[in-house]
Amino acid sequence: MTTNTGPKWVYNFGAGQADGRAEMRALLGGKGANLAEMSNLGLPVPPGFTITTEVCTYFYKNGETYPPDLKAAVEAALKHVGELADGRFGDAARPLLVSVRSGARASMPGMMDTVLNLGLNPETVAGLAAQTGDERFAYDSYRRFIQMYSGVVLEVDHGHFEEILEDEKEQKGVELDTDLDASDWKRIAERYKAKVQKVLGRPFPDDVYEQLWGAIGAVFGSWMGARAKTYRRLNNIPEDWGTAVNVQAMVFGNRGTTSATGVAFTRDPSTGERILYGEFLINAQGEDVVAGIRTPQSITKSAREASRSKRLSMEEAMPDAFAELSRIASRLEAHYRDMQDVEFTVQEGTLFMLQTRSGKRTARAALRVATEMVNEGLITEDEAVMRVDPSALDQLLHPTLDPDAPKELITTGLAASPGAASGEAVFTAEEAEHAASDGRDVILVRLETSPEDIHGMHAAKGILTVRGGMTSHAAVVARGMGRPCVTGAGTLKVDVERGTMTAGSFTVSRGDIITIDGAAGKVYRGRVPMLLPEMSGDFATLMQWADARRRLGIRTNADTPADCETARRYGAEGVGLCRTEHMFFDAERILAVRQMILADDLAGRKAALTKLLPMQRSDFHGIFRIMQGLPVTIRLLDPPLHEFIPHSDEEIAEVAKAAGSEPAKLRARAIALAEANPMLGHRGCRLGISYPEIYEMQARAIFEAQLDAEAETGTPVHLEIMIPLVGFKSELDFLRDRIAAVAEAVEKERGKKPVYMIGTMIELPRAALMAKEIAGTAEFFSFGTNDLTQTTLGVSRDDAGSFLSEYLTRGLIERDPFVTIDRKGVGELVEIAVKRGREGRPNLKLGICGEHGGDPDSIRFCHEAGLDYVSCSPFRVPVARLAAAQAALANTREKD
Amino acid sequence: MTTNTGPKWVYNFGAGQADGRAEMRALLGGKGANLAEMSNLGLPVPPGFTITTEVCTYFYKNGETYPPDLKAAVEAALKHVGELADGRFGDAARPLLVSVRSGARASMPGMMDTVLNLGLNPETVAGLAAQTGDERFAYDSYRRFIQMYSGVVLEVDHGHFEEILEDEKEQKGVELDTDLDASDWKRIAERYKAKVQKVLGRPFPDDVYEQLWGAIGAVFGSWMGARAKTYRRLNNIPEDWGTAVNVQAMVFGNRGTTSATGVAFTRDPSTGERILYGEFLINAQGEDVVAGIRTPQSITKSAREASRSKRLSMEEAMPDAFAELSRIASRLEAHYRDMQDVEFTVQEGTLFMLQTRSGKRTARAALRVATEMVNEGLITEDEAVMRVDPSALDQLLHPTLDPDAPKELITTGLAASPGAASGEAVFTAEEAEHAASDGRDVILVRLETSPEDIHGMHAAKGILTVRGGMTSHAAVVARGMGRPCVTGAGTLKVDVERGTMTAGSFTVSRGDIITIDGAAGKVYRGRVPMLLPEMSGDFATLMQWADARRRLGIRTNADTPADCETARRYGAEGVGLCRTEHMFFDAERILAVRQMILADDLAGRKAALTKLLPMQRSDFHGIFRIMQGLPVTIRLLDPPLHEFIPHSDEEIAEVAKAAGSEPAKLRARAIALAEANPMLGHRGCRLGISYPEIYEMQARAIFEAQLDAEAETGTPVHLEIMIPLVGFKSELDFLRDRIAAVAEAVEKERGKKPVYMIGTMIELPRAALMAKEIAGTAEFFSFGTNDLTQTTLGVSRDDAGSFLSEYLTRGLIERDPFVTIDRKGVGELVEIAVKRGREGRPNLKLGICGEHGGDPDSIRFCHEAGLDYVSCSPFRVPVARLAAAQAALANTREKD
Repeated sequence: MTTNTGPKWVYNFGAGQADGRAEMRALLGGKGANLAEMSNLGLPVPPGFTITTEVCTYFYKNGETYPPDLKAAVEAALKHVGELADGRFGDAARPLLVSVRSGARASMPGMMDTVLNLGLNPETVAGLAAQTGDERFAYDSYRRFIQMYSGVVLEVDHGHFEEILEDEKEQKGVELDTDLDASDWKRIAERYKAKVQKVLGRPFPDDVYEQLWGAIGAVFGSWMGARAKTYRRLNNIPEDWGTAVNVQAMVFGNRGTTSATGVAFTRDPSTGERILYGEFLINAQGEDVVAGIRTPQSITKSAREASRSKRLSMEEAMPDAFAELSRIASRLEAHYRDMQDVEFTVQEGTLFMLQTRSGKRTARAALRVATEMVNEGLITEDEAVMRVDPSALDQLLHPTLDPDAPKELITTGLAASPGAASGEAVFTAEEAEHAASDGRDVILVRLETSPEDIHGMHAAKGILTVRGGMTSHAAVVARGMGRPCVTGAGTLKVDVERGTMTAGSFTVSRGDIITIDGAAGKVYRGRVPMLLPEMSGDFATLMQWADARRRLGIRTNADTPADCETARRYGAEGVGLCRTEHMFFDAERILAVRQMILADDLAGRKAALTKLLPMQRSDFHGIFRIMQGLPVTIRLLDPPLHEFIPHSDEEIAEVAKAAGSEPAKLRARAIALAEANPMLGHRGCRLGISYPEIYEMQARAIFEAQLDAEAETGTPVHLEIMIPLVGFKSELDFLRDRIAAVAEAVEKERGKKPVYMIGTMIELPRAALMAKEIAGTAEFFSFGTNDLTQTTLGVSRDDAGSFLSEYLTRGLIERDPFVTIDRKGVGELVEIAVKRGREGRPNLKLGICGEHGGDPDSIRFCHEAGLDYVSCSPFRVPVARLAAAQAALANTREKD
Repeated sequence: MTTNTGPKWVYNFGAGQADGRAEMRALLGGKGANLAEMSNLGLPVPPGFTITTEVCTYFYKNGETYPPDLKAAVEAALKHVGELADGRFGDAARPLLVSVRSGARASMPGMMDTVLNLGLNPETVAGLAAQTGDERFAYDSYRRFIQMYSGVVLEVDHGHFEEILEDEKEQKGVELDTDLDASDWKRIAERYKAKVQKVLGRPFPDDVYEQLWGAIGAVFGSWMGARAKTYRRLNNIPEDWGTAVNVQAMVFGNRGTTSATGVAFTRDPSTGERILYGEFLINAQGEDVVAGIRTPQSITKSAREASRSKRLSMEEAMPDAFAELSRIASRLEAHYRDMQDVEFTVQEGTLFMLQTRSGKRTARAALRVATEMVNEGLITEDEAVMRVDPSALDQLLHPTLDPDAPKELITTGLAASPGAASGEAVFTAEEAEHAASDGRDVILVRLETSPEDIHGMHAAKGILTVRGGMTSHAAVVARGMGRPCVTGAGTLKVDVERGTMTAGSFTVSRGDIITIDGAAGKVYRGRVPMLLPEMSGDFATLMQWADARRRLGIRTNADTPADCETARRYGAEGVGLCRTEHMFFDAERILAVRQMILADDLAGRKAALTKLLPMQRSDFHGIFRIMQGLPVTIRLLDPPLHEFIPHSDEEIAEVAKAAGSEPAKLRARAIALAEANPMLGHRGCRLGISYPEIYEMQARAIFEAQLDAEAETGTPVHLEIMIPLVGFKSELDFLRDRIAAVAEAVEKERGKKPVYMIGTMIELPRAALMAKEIAGTAEFFSFGTNDLTQTTLGVSRDDAGSFLSEYLTRGLIERDPFVTIDRKGVGELVEIAVKRGREGRPNLKLGICGEHGGDPDSIRFCHEAGLDYVSCSPFRVPVARLAAAQAALANTREKD
């Protein structure tokens, strides 16, 4: 029957051998490939088989139908599994039960839930009871199967089953599941089936093959489900990867007190410490641990002691199985050369491995694991640098709570994901998303989280749940996202309807500010002051390795001395963009700015500018002092003037009064300055050309501050003056001459020559094309990729919300081009400008100051495009340092 | 003294020979080169010399100083002129008097006024009186010189001199200049000089060399004057061309009744008829004719008779001089192979030629001259095609007054420039410019025009003056600009202060609508209905020659059947852009459009779209019927939805009522749809992707109309459906699939397959770069160069007013990039897209539908870039046909 010459759709594993291996992730999915690998290693893996991702691709390319030869292949594989597991699928005497699990190339938490105990029906359950001599176990397994299969495959609401269970317990007058016996479970199973019949209008399937194909279809169906699509979009996973399906002989963790199920990490996923770390539940099936329904026990004795739990650890309760698990964990880590996250089941004292994969970890843990594995000789420094996700580093760079600050503790839970965050309490994912889109910080508070909450968890600054452990959905997802998270805060009572949470005497209402400390598992009332993180230890080590490997310089976008200080602490090597307009918004200054805008003539404008001069000079002085010895790029005024004047009647009246002007005049000026498309309007160098006196004032403030700072520190200021929005060389020439004249004037007055470079932003397609010509005047270019993206794509970032997310959902674009540079379009213009700019001036200095400068994928592009540096926000500087190193390593590797 | 080996700064001419020749325009200016050429031809040219344009360039490159050896060269040349003219510069007995005229490479009306009679002072004027025996002539010449020199060189207001002259006439009790005698002019000259001394605080120069260098300096100075700069900007003349200075021995048209001065065209500049055409004044100096102070007489008897003048023509009054002029005119035309505009003076019966140049002509005349010269064997068809300025053709294509329409004649003047125009009467150039910038049509009414009025004449739809003849400033400039013009409407009384003009019982106030007919010299009250011009005769001939030579196809941008009819009459070969949104604004439809926008869900939108479907279908049906057999490109909805809903409270209330909705809902929707930068917002294909039902409705309307029209006419509709604002191939793919599905549905319903091509606009830089990929789906590209210019340059056309004109004034850019395509920036993107697009699809059809499609320089670019067609507004179609032919000829020539 399996003599087809087409693709091999089904891969077997088990009994110390397998058709596949770890490298076949793309075909077998991560789970399937690793089950094969573990089998090949001789580890105790229940036998099974994997239906490949190519079947999924075939399924969606062929109107949701299977390859014709799949059925025979699955049946043959089932037979083989039965032989190894000493059973037969659907056999009433020795029934083979299987689990069905999805398994894509990349781990996708919460895509398709596992179905366990598949193969049970009135006949086989009786056989199972007879075979195991444990009727209670058999019918408990049966009702679990009906419940899981109905929820996952048949999409029957799980509330129906909970209702029945509650009713049964009430009738019997008991509270715990363990108080129910075999006949209870048997009756419950019948009631479940009757409910399914009632809800669906058709019976629950008793045919085991119908059960199996239903579950396989549900796995493939979930690949195109809304949740999976959202996850793929957020994680940049292409749709055509597809998912595999793993069918595996059941082993049971619920066969009594010598059975258990659990998950473990080969190192602590929160701290990275080299200890076996995990949780398990005695007499339970796998989903009980992950779902957070029962609070699990620690694996190690030391962990139990640390948490002051009285319930025995696995190390104490099942010393043999624990020793075997420890041995296998070490073996797997050495084999995969990375920290592993494993699932296991102990069936009547025997350990079985159900899964291994690279363990998700916090950035702190990633750092520690990477650096310690280098010290252990397991990986090289290059590998360590490549191992840490730069985006995840971000979470390390968030502030922590000030230990000395007064705090009002509301409650304590588990320290599920490190970092601290403050924000308004909200109780649904929708609220979280909505508030975040308004720019408000929120903490998402949930009883427990589920995949439906992912978008809200993304939008929130932190997550707090009442239930669940360290490996609950909330904890795993939050760590992946780098969000601080506290789970299992069991004393909290949450009322979603009323929008309140209470703990003892505390009541927090929707919108009240709370603070969570994900590293300590604490929840506080109000906003608690925070401290900047220390940049030492593993972090410093990895950064040192990264710095030794990167070619790109890393600068920062900083407008104030405070920004500059932060950035220097994070390792910035200069300022790549100092926006001067932010300085204009200070309460004291905005008045002078508005007087300038309202002035009727040049003399009036100059009078107002004269007031601004000393303020601007002192701004620059502060920055130059901090950045001494490093380059500082200052961009002259960029935004259109109407941004500085108010538009509502009330504000106009207020400002007119303060400015000693008439509201009517202010309103007229506001109307005259209003623009249809301000992004493409009278701004940037166009302002400097219409009102050269503005740029002349700024140039004077810069030069005077430069000479002052140099005199004070004795160190030269490496000054780069940058002209924004240049499209024509003539614009730059015009302004270069004006600035040079100011420099000469200052030199005459001070007797010392201001040394500076003049350059331009490349943020218009025309500027990129004219780069050779423009480089005749410009001594440096800085790519303003925000505006370059807006003009090249013809997309206003302010207005893109109404369609860009839809483009991502529909798969019309792969990435948000404002987050990761559009390589094909904007990228080509950057490459053209680099090539032509260097033709015009071989030693042209090239950098990027758009927000892409802090995005790892964009940084890789900048490396490949041959830029000299990237510039990003102060908190992103370490991210950029690491990403730049990875870009250099990746390119070296590709060239090898 | 002239043994220098550097450049030759001074070129002599006169007495049948010259240093220069006609080809040396760049060096000698047009006037100087032609004076040299006429001398070489043996024509009677008063001797003189030309100071080259290189001196002007030197002057401005060297801090406004002259080459050191210039002085000696000028003195030597003056000596030579004196020898030929039998006099000596500054000599009291036989004084040589000279004229000083500017003369740039291109004729620039109104740059520097001529100075005549230079070399007169108290001594030489006495000598001139003695030499000529005509004291009145001598002192009249002297006072003219003082007046002209003071005005032009010393910049003393001419009002001072008019005041003195009026005072003298009043004291003597006379009205005419001719009533003043020698002693009067002598006294007047003294009073003039005293006034200059008083105004300037220094005496009028008596030193003849001081006079000469003053005049030369004034010529160079005027090159950088504001007027000259404006003219150069409007006419795209580079600043570094410079002007030459012509110094020439005086001949006098004011030596009594056997003397005269005049201007003549070798053909009628208004109609092109092959007759000598011109005006002259007996006993006058040259400026009298041009300035329009005295109304001149006709040159030919037939012209006098046609105008029913009683004053003798030159043909009758001076038959010998007339015969000589006719002979020379023929000779010049044959020599230059083009219609000439000559200036002459008759001194005591002897004819002297002072200038010849290519005559400015109306488009009608240009057509006739070009076609007739081909028939006469003077030029080739190719030359004829190259001879007509496509931009000027525009004036032929404007409507003329409906002869049968009722009209209320206000007054009659001279038919100075053909064409008819209606608009609000305005009385200053500033008003004209202001109103035009508001989009209002205006007629500029002036006593007479001067170079200060040029910007207002540009802004006006037509020009009406009280004074001046057919060669007055207003007439010459208006013809050059293609503006209808009536001059010499002497019965009008204009009160600029009060903003009124009166003629008999009529009073027209500022803002009242008037209509002028420049072909008949008539002025009417109100708006007179107009007729479309006939496209036959010379026009048809030249178009036929043009069509035989062009490679580019010419299509039209037309949204209605009426537009299509006009365009076909003008020779359009298809529709290159049919904008469907204009159809939505019809009163009947806008309601359904708004219902669609206000709908809460897809069903509501579909219901509203169902109402629009039959309306859109009938629009397309009308267009397809007219354009049968020709290609029609229909662009699906492009503008953002907020353009269709009102924003003021009153309008919102009104619309809400009509749409059966709440004002609050409408307002909320308006706010939700508002965008920061609509140009870069939710529009074009982005709308079609968010609301596929809109494009589906449009596609259905198009296909149904296509099948209807094909059934009706039996001719296929060459349908091209165009998707706007594509930046990603995926956008086009998504919409292509939807449209194909509609086509299939219509085919099923109708049993006939709609045949169509699908293509896209290239209007974003990214689309240009991705052209190869996009051409995988698109069967044609149409360059939307309006938006491509906006995005490439980062300039919003709506907001560019505040800085682009300043850029032009400051010389930062040469052309308005929204009028003539920016070759370096936008042009390179077009070239990239052409190359890559054809790589992706070798038979890709390429066109342009931005407004550049009607601009001759841009059309030349399109030819060179290898496009297949250009598309422009219906009235520009003939302009485009001719420009396309010229582009083809110019390129053939360059390749030869």
